[in-house]
Amino acid sequence: MSGDHLPLGEFDLIDRYFSGAVANARSGVILGVGDDAALMRLPPNTDLVAAVDTLVAGRHFPLDCEPRSIGHRALAVNLSDMAAMGATPAWATLALTLPSADAAWLERFSLGLLHLAQAHGVALVGGDTTAGPLTISVQILGHVTPGTALRRSGAAAGDLLAVTGDLGDAGAGLALRTGRLLADDRAAAAAVLERFDYPTPRVSFGIQARGVASAAMDLSDGLVGDLAKLARASGVAAQVEVERLPLSAALQSLVSTSQAREWALAAGDDYELLLAVAPRKWDELEAAARGLDLKLTAIGELRPGNGVQWSLGGESFVPAAPGYDHFR
Amino acid sequence: MSGDHLPLGEFDLIDRYFSGAVANARSGVILGVGDDAALMRLPPNTDLVAAVDTLVAGRHFPLDCEPRSIGHRALAVNLSDMAAMGATPAWATLALTLPSADAAWLERFSLGLLHLAQAHGVALVGGDTTAGPLTISVQILGHVTPGTALRRSGAAAGDLLAVTGDLGDAGAGLALRTGRLLADDRAAAAAVLERFDYPTPRVSFGIQARGVASAAMDLSDGLVGDLAKLARASGVAAQVEVERLPLSAALQSLVSTSQAREWALAAGDDYELLLAVAPRKWDELEAAARGLDLKLTAIGELRPGNGVQWSLGGESFVPAAPGYDHFR
Repeated sequence: MSGDHLPLGEFDLIDRYFSGAVANARSGVILGVGDDAALMRLPPNTDLVAAVDTLVAGRHFPLDCEPRSIGHRALAVNLSDMAAMGATPAWATLALTLPSADAAWLERFSLGLLHLAQAHGVALVGGDTTAGPLTISVQILGHVTPGTALRRSGAAAGDLLAVTGDLGDAGAGLALRTGRLLADDRAAAAAVLERFDYPTPRVSFGIQARGVASAAMDLSDGLVGDLAKLARASGVAAQVEVERLPLSAALQSLVSTSQAREWALAAGDDYELLLAVAPRKWDELEAAARGLDLKLTAIGELRPGNGVQWSLGGESFVPAAPGYDHFR
Repeated sequence: MSGDHLPLGEFDLIDRYFSGAVANARSGVILGVGDDAALMRLPPNTDLVAAVDTLVAGRHFPLDCEPRSIGHRALAVNLSDMAAMGATPAWATLALTLPSADAAWLERFSLGLLHLAQAHGVALVGGDTTAGPLTISVQILGHVTPGTALRRSGAAAGDLLAVTGDLGDAGAGLALRTGRLLADDRAAAAAVLERFDYPTPRVSFGIQARGVASAAMDLSDGLVGDLAKLARASGVAAQVEVERLPLSAALQSLVSTSQAREWALAAGDDYELLLAVAPRKWDELEAAARGLDLKLTAIGELRPGNGVQWSLGGESFVPAAPGYDHFR
C-alpha cells in the first residue's frame, strides 16, 4: 500500500529508540529484534505465560498525555497481567502505530517503557511500527513453574478477599488530568496523578502469592466489574464491605469519601491485585506483603452461590457505575 | 476513560467469535482465553519463537477489504514470519481495535483468521478488543529445535539465492482492488486477487528448509528492500538476474513483463520466502519444494562485498521503487 513520506524508517525506529532494552546473557534471549522473529529459551521446568493489552489514544489515556507515561503504562498494564498470574515476566514485543515519527515523542515514550522494562528485567525482543492513529499493543511473555500459576478460577467459598495498595487514586488522577476535578491540595493532586500516570504492577507480590492465594486477578477495569469476573470464574458469590476499601490519604483529602469510594469501585486503572485466600493462609499472604512494604487489605469474603453483594454500614449497597468495558 | 456505548462487551467478543480456535490436548495450551494471561507448555528441547505484525486499515489493506481476507491476512503475515525462521507455529494472541462491534464484520473476520489458524494447528490463546480506528496486531508464538532456526544472517558468499512461488501477484491484486489496473482477463484477475487477499505462508517449506538453507526471510516489503536486508545481515553482496524472477501466467496475461517485474521487485505483500543456499545443497532444497508442490526458483547468488546488484539481459538494472517502509 502507498506510504506517507515521514522522516524515519521503521527499522531505524526500533533500532534508535529501543536498543536500550538490550538482551543480556541472563535474559534467555537467543536472537532479539532484527530478524523475522525472536528466539528465546525458557528456564528449565517452566511453562510459558503470555498476555496482550492494547492502549488507544483518547480511550485508555488522554490525548495530551505525557509520552513517558504512555510508554510506562503500555508495559505496566501487561506486567500487571503477569503479576496476576504469579508469573515472572521476561520478554515483550511492541506493536506501535503512530501518526508520525515524532522524534521527541518517541524519545520520551521509549524512556518510559524501557525504564520499567529494565526495572523488571524484561527484554524487548520484537517490534512493529506502522503509521496510523496512535495505538500501542504490548505482548508480554513470562514463565512460571508448572501448576503454580494464580488463576481467577481457584477461589473457594470461605476464602477471604483482599486487595493490594489503595483503590481509586487512578480515577482521581484521570479526573484531574481531564479537568473534571480541580484540586487545592497540590501535594495530594500530584500523588494521585502519579498513580494514574505511572501505575505500579505488583509483580514481586504476585510471585510470592503463588501457593498462598487461591485466586488472583489485576484490577484494570474497576473492582465492581473485575470481582464479578473472579466470582464467576470460581463459581462462588462474593460479599464486600465497602467501608473496608483502602483509600489513600491523598484521595481522601481531595474528594468526599463517597466520591472516593465510587472511584475505588468503578474507575479502574489502579492495577492493584485482587486476591482470594483461605483464612488459614491469611497471615502468610500478609507477611509477604509486609516484606515488600505493600499494603494488603481484606475487603470481604467468598460464599457459596453467585454474584457480588456490596454492603455499607451493614446495609445493602448498590455501586453507581458498572465496570469499564471498552465495548459497552 | 469514558467508553462508547456499543452493543457488545469485549469478553463477549472474544468468546463469541474466537471460541472456534479451541485449544486441544496436542496444542500445549494449559490455560487459554479468559484469565489474565494464557499458559502454554513448549515441547521438550525447543526454543520459543515470537513475532508481531500490525495491520492498519487503509495502509496494509484497502478500507473496503473483505473482512474474511483481513482476518486471514492478519494471521498469514505472522505465520510467514514463522516460516522464515523454520519454526513451528503454535499459539497466537490478537489485539483488535475496531470502530464498532459490527457482528457481521466480526463474523467474517474471525472466519478468515480461524480457518487459517486451524489449517496450521494454531490456537488463539489471548485477545484484547478495544474501540478505535481499525488496527489489528497478531503476535504469533512457535517453537524450534535449538540451533536450527533460519536467520537472515547465515548466508555466505557463493550461496545461491532462491525464492518460493511467484512474485508480483499481490502487487497486481492490490492494483486491481484499488482500481489502478483494469483487467479483461477475468480468470487472471481472480487469480492475482486471490493471491493478494489470501496470501499463503510457506510454513511447511520453512520447516523443511532448516539445516538446508543457510538463511531465509519472508518477502513482505518487496524483494528490493528485503534482499538488501538479508545481504546486510549476512555481510555479503547479492547479484540478481531480473529475468529469472518467477512471474505467474496470470500476472503475465494482465500486464507487460516490465510492469510485472516492477511489482515482483517492489510491490511487496507476496509472503513468499527468500532463501540463501550453498550450491551443494541446492538439490536437497529443490526436492523439499517439489515434495510440497511448491515452485522454487534460483534468481541469483551471493558474493563478497555488500549491496545488491541487479541485471537484466546482462546489463545493469536499476529497480524503479524502493522497498516498502511504513515510515518512509
